[in-house]
Amino acid sequence: MHFASDNSGPAHASVLEALAEANDGYAMGYGNDALSAEVRDKLRALFEAPEADVFLVPTGTAANSLALACLCEPYRSIFCAEHAHIHVDECNAPEFYTGGAKLWPVPHGDRMTPETLRAAIAASKANGIHGPVGGAVSITSVTEGGNVLSIDEIASLSAVAKEAGLPVHLDGARFANACVKLGCTPAEMSWKAGVDVAVFGGTKNGLLGAEAVIFFDPGLARGFAERRKRGGHLFSKHRMLAAQMKAYLEGDLWHELAKRANAACDMLRAGLEAQGVKIENDTHANMLFAHLPARLHDALHAEGAVYHTFDEEDGLIPGRFVCDWSTGQGAVDALLAALKRHM
Amino acid sequence: MHFASDNSGPAHASVLEALAEANDGYAMGYGNDALSAEVRDKLRALFEAPEADVFLVPTGTAANSLALACLCEPYRSIFCAEHAHIHVDECNAPEFYTGGAKLWPVPHGDRMTPETLRAAIAASKANGIHGPVGGAVSITSVTEGGNVLSIDEIASLSAVAKEAGLPVHLDGARFANACVKLGCTPAEMSWKAGVDVAVFGGTKNGLLGAEAVIFFDPGLARGFAERRKRGGHLFSKHRMLAAQMKAYLEGDLWHELAKRANAACDMLRAGLEAQGVKIENDTHANMLFAHLPARLHDALHAEGAVYHTFDEEDGLIPGRFVCDWSTGQGAVDALLAALKRHM
Amino acid sequence: MHFASDNSGPAHASVLEALAEANDGYAMGYGNDALSAEVRDKLRALFEAPEADVFLVPTGTAANSLALACLCEPYRSIFCAEHAHIHVDECNAPEFYTGGAKLWPVPHGDRMTPETLRAAIAASKANGIHGPVGGAVSITSVTEGGNVLSIDEIASLSAVAKEAGLPVHLDGARFANACVKLGCTPAEMSWKAGVDVAVFGGTKNGLLGAEAVIFFDPGLARGFAERRKRGGHLFSKHRMLAAQMKAYLEGDLWHELAKRANAACDMLRAGLEAQGVKIENDTHANMLFAHLPARLHDALHAEGAVYHTFDEEDGLIPGRFVCDWSTGQGAVDALLAALKRHM
Amino acid sequence: MHFASDNSGPAHASVLEALAEANDGYAMGYGNDALSAEVRDKLRALFEAPEADVFLVPTGTAANSLALACLCEPYRSIFCAEHAHIHVDECNAPEFYTGGAKLWPVPHGDRMTPETLRAAIAASKANGIHGPVGGAVSITSVTEGGNVLSIDEIASLSAVAKEAGLPVHLDGARFANACVKLGCTPAEMSWKAGVDVAVFGGTKNGLLGAEAVIFFDPGLARGFAERRKRGGHLFSKHRMLAAQMKAYLEGDLWHELAKRANAACDMLRAGLEAQGVKIENDTHANMLFAHLPARLHDALHAEGAVYHTFDEEDGLIPGRFVCDWSTGQGAVDALLAALKRHM
Repeated sequence: MHFASDNSGPAHASVLEALAEANDGYAMGYGNDALSAEVRDKLRALFEAPEADVFLVPTGTAANSLALACLCEPYRSIFCAEHAHIHVDECNAPEFYTGGAKLWPVPHGDRMTPETLRAAIAASKANGIHGPVGGAVSITSVTEGGNVLSIDEIASLSAVAKEAGLPVHLDGARFANACVKLGCTPAEMSWKAGVDVAVFGGTKNGLLGAEAVIFFDPGLARGFAERRKRGGHLFSKHRMLAAQMKAYLEGDLWHELAKRANAACDMLRAGLEAQGVKIENDTHANMLFAHLPARLHDALHAEGAVYHTFDEEDGLIPGRFVCDWSTGQGAVDALLAALKRHM
Repeated sequence: MHFASDNSGPAHASVLEALAEANDGYAMGYGNDALSAEVRDKLRALFEAPEADVFLVPTGTAANSLALACLCEPYRSIFCAEHAHIHVDECNAPEFYTGGAKLWPVPHGDRMTPETLRAAIAASKANGIHGPVGGAVSITSVTEGGNVLSIDEIASLSAVAKEAGLPVHLDGARFANACVKLGCTPAEMSWKAGVDVAVFGGTKNGLLGAEAVIFFDPGLARGFAERRKRGGHLFSKHRMLAAQMKAYLEGDLWHELAKRANAACDMLRAGLEAQGVKIENDTHANMLFAHLPARLHDALHAEGAVYHTFDEEDGLIPGRFVCDWSTGQGAVDALLAALKRHM
Repeated sequence: MHFASDNSGPAHASVLEALAEANDGYAMGYGNDALSAEVRDKLRALFEAPEADVFLVPTGTAANSLALACLCEPYRSIFCAEHAHIHVDECNAPEFYTGGAKLWPVPHGDRMTPETLRAAIAASKANGIHGPVGGAVSITSVTEGGNVLSIDEIASLSAVAKEAGLPVHLDGARFANACVKLGCTPAEMSWKAGVDVAVFGGTKNGLLGAEAVIFFDPGLARGFAERRKRGGHLFSKHRMLAAQMKAYLEGDLWHELAKRANAACDMLRAGLEAQGVKIENDTHANMLFAHLPARLHDALHAEGAVYHTFDEEDGLIPGRFVCDWSTGQGAVDALLAALKRHM
Repeated sequence: MHFASDNSGPAHASVLEALAEANDGYAMGYGNDALSAEVRDKLRALFEAPEADVFLVPTGTAANSLALACLCEPYRSIFCAEHAHIHVDECNAPEFYTGGAKLWPVPHGDRMTPETLRAAIAASKANGIHGPVGGAVSITSVTEGGNVLSIDEIASLSAVAKEAGLPVHLDGARFANACVKLGCTPAEMSWKAGVDVAVFGGTKNGLLGAEAVIFFDPGLARGFAERRKRGGHLFSKHRMLAAQMKAYLEGDLWHELAKRANAACDMLRAGLEAQGVKIENDTHANMLFAHLPARLHDALHAEGAVYHTFDEEDGLIPGRFVCDWSTGQGAVDALLAALKRHM
């Protein structure tokens, strides 16, 4: 009954096999090996973007922050949802990589709307040089609140950004889960919806630690290679990142693993709602916020369920349940049964 | 005949096995898992430093730069050898992580001496507030020129730093190879010789990508955890770093692998010198700079030898030959034989 | 009828006289002259803080940002009001000087309350290392909305900061106008109310460009001198800053000038309210936000009144009227008369 | 007998008069006033550069560092002479403003040559992505050693920079003194010799604190305005910078004042050499390095001479004698007479 985070789960076996295979013999370092080149090509193919510039890094924090550093000057702002992960949960990583740009939280909650984004962009221009004016817009397809933005929502936000001449970044966390939920391709969720730079996250979906940053306009990638190096994210044994990504792409493993995680979450939601539990997020990919009395959380934790809880709202306490690719029906059933016993 | 770099070689099989083992089931993220705690303890034991603060990161660039950021304010200087890797080969990573500290190259070449270091520290104080005055000293046990500092050399440099109240950082690259060469323990090469923060590098010696940063005075580690996070180096699936390090420590694998690399290099040196080749470095661990005419380099490269060459000096061209743990006698013999054929 | 800003007005004549006097002959640079030392002592006396560390810089942006850089690590947050000048109007200067700390806007509007500040501090701790947790609190005595915080308000906010172990910065803009309004001493408005670092602003109150940064605990000033130098704010001809500040302190000119500005604003408020104009700010020092229909703004501007307007709210447009020390009764009467003609 | 620095002297009387005149009545802040516009135009005219982008800032540190921040990405290098002021005497200001670029000291001493610069640029490219590669070249016309570069020297260095595609910055310190020495126009010493951005310094030559940054290619100035603001160098009472610069340009005061300073230095050199004193710098503008035994320095200091001394070289101690516009014949004669008495 482990629902703490999709980064608490194991890597898929084929990832370890790919590592072992890639480990054979010598290979030039720093991405100058054949496997890394092959994987970059496969990512271009997956995103239907033959001209894209593609980079691998080990963590999502690095991927998102490095991408934003290429998009936004230090004296500008990055617009994101008030609760965006890059704003509330990265210990100022985007500020660090951009050299001091401001994250401009757009109200309210986990989602910007075209209206609130447009208003924030306008406000950023009201003070002239004293601004700071906007530099980029960052969107997350599966929000910190567990909701999934529709393609239309992404496209509408991108359109507002484009009106203002701002490039659009798509956060890589749960990229695959969103694709599965929306039944769309990576291209449809990114450049076809106006995204300029997408992070294709793997760490939360069955890899050990590997993310791809895809610049659809290679011109925007200026300086990425240097920034990756000086950030300490240019792996010398680069084939080790490439091997993970190769396994992830092979037979669309990324899609299959996200499908499993989402399916577990579907079961969990149905079971919770059947017991009358209020779920906070309207939609979901692989993450639910379930409101329960403190008593029930205590009981579940006592039975060995692992997940995070948050501050009380209206007498109930939100619990966050995240499914990963390895969350089986067994874990879901066990949790639901435990809940039933204590209801 | 692959001598390009010790980061071009494979990881040791036991590292992949440890990864597979660690991959089983769930584990809390961000270093809050049992394996990570166990490995930190083992590192404290290896370094005979029960009070040390220990952190794992994926790359040497990150390890060294993060350590230096804890030691040196942005308005101060880091003294290092003119040819130090952190100065010439990291795309300004230390400048980035410190927020703009200056790397102060101490002449000449790949090694500081107590005299040149003392003079540089004095010079940094000559301009008062305009300085910048010194903040830290960084030492490398196997220099960029392939030489190995003796324990006495490290201790003498540390003593000069201490006189001036400056903390001492020991670069992690080829740490194990230096230990083997010097026949000393990690403690003897670090805190017993006056080092305040050591990086225990693994990536160049049989790991996929994992380094340990050891603060012997935990007070100096203030902010490291936050800086690691905002630098994007706090692995969520942290057990994957810990597993590598566990394998590295098990049965002193780190020592065994370095011994193999150094032994291959010993054979190579003996063979080259037997053919009259001039080796630039006086001492060596696992890296040689051999001076050959351009014609011979061409011949060797044509026969499939892989290694880097540098700018001509006195009619000869230095070639850098690096052995890693997997460099067998076969590769060394093949290279020597090829050279003989073309001499 | 010039009400655009208190930085649009002239310097007081005695400031120019002091400059001329200080200009005679040679003086050591960089603050090592007798006049600078004398002025630092006078500031300590004014603030009843004989141990304080005192620095002069030319602009408020520099004064506030440099002070915050000493208080807050780059991986932490600075709590301030949502509309705080340092957050919305400084083009990321605090982010720049701190090396990427986050400004954490505390709702709502131009004022924090102990409750909203306490909640923000708690929220910053909810995510552990991923935070960023708090590093400092910044308070402004005359808010961007023109309101004046009471001593009690400042003390209550400071108390919340202290509970959490956070140092408190007091923004220097309109410091003198707040003192006059509150009828208090600089000490009462700063360290006696829990402030750790105060900026004593002069540029908006009759100087050319000079501000003093007062660290009541000299331990907090560590690095200020170096940061001022590397920020380019260590004037070589430092007596030119000191001379301005000397004139400002002489005979409490700072107090007299702020009294004049506030008095003009009192007259303006009374006159506007007599004509039924709604003033947005409850209290005021030398700045009013008056809501008028667009038609009246046009008429006033056409008659030569100079002031800023903002976005429409409920059918009316806020106009900002700022009085400085040189705003005479004539200008106020002229504005009120013009308004009357067009009402 | 005050020869400590040209920033220890007074401002010229006409500068104070211009300040008083500019101080009359209201003026829009932040450079949006008529006087500031007028002065920018006059600077364009002086530099024969009608398209140039021109900015005023209060200090040389700010002027040079902000200019370099526009030219050089944080992951690149700035080539400068080993003893360049920006490298050894600014407490890492260029590193701060660029966000961590490296200052690459080009041997030897106070002057780069086309050969040493070319070699440094080549070396910066040898390590590929790990570099850092070059971003800009910074030249000083009057070196830290007191020598004056000829127009040919500046042009030759610029040509090497241009070959490598690097923009050229000309440090603003003693710009006027160099022009006078070389008998050339500001245009001849800057853009006509290949300089892309020149700082026209005034603080060391009779102003209180004002420098102009001239971008001959306005495209290179991208971001300067924002960087100046976030650095705290956008004066709100901007006319106070403009007034100084206006006085400086009026009747070519800048040229007249530099002529006086250089003339005093000519007298001093002649007098010292007549007494057999060895002067270190081959050429000079307004600064000499005179080698004297410790005994004589003590005697001069005891008689009230003020100047800096440096570390002993070959039994003698270099003393630095700087003349400013206000150094009269009296001071020079007094120094020479005192020396004679003690010889």
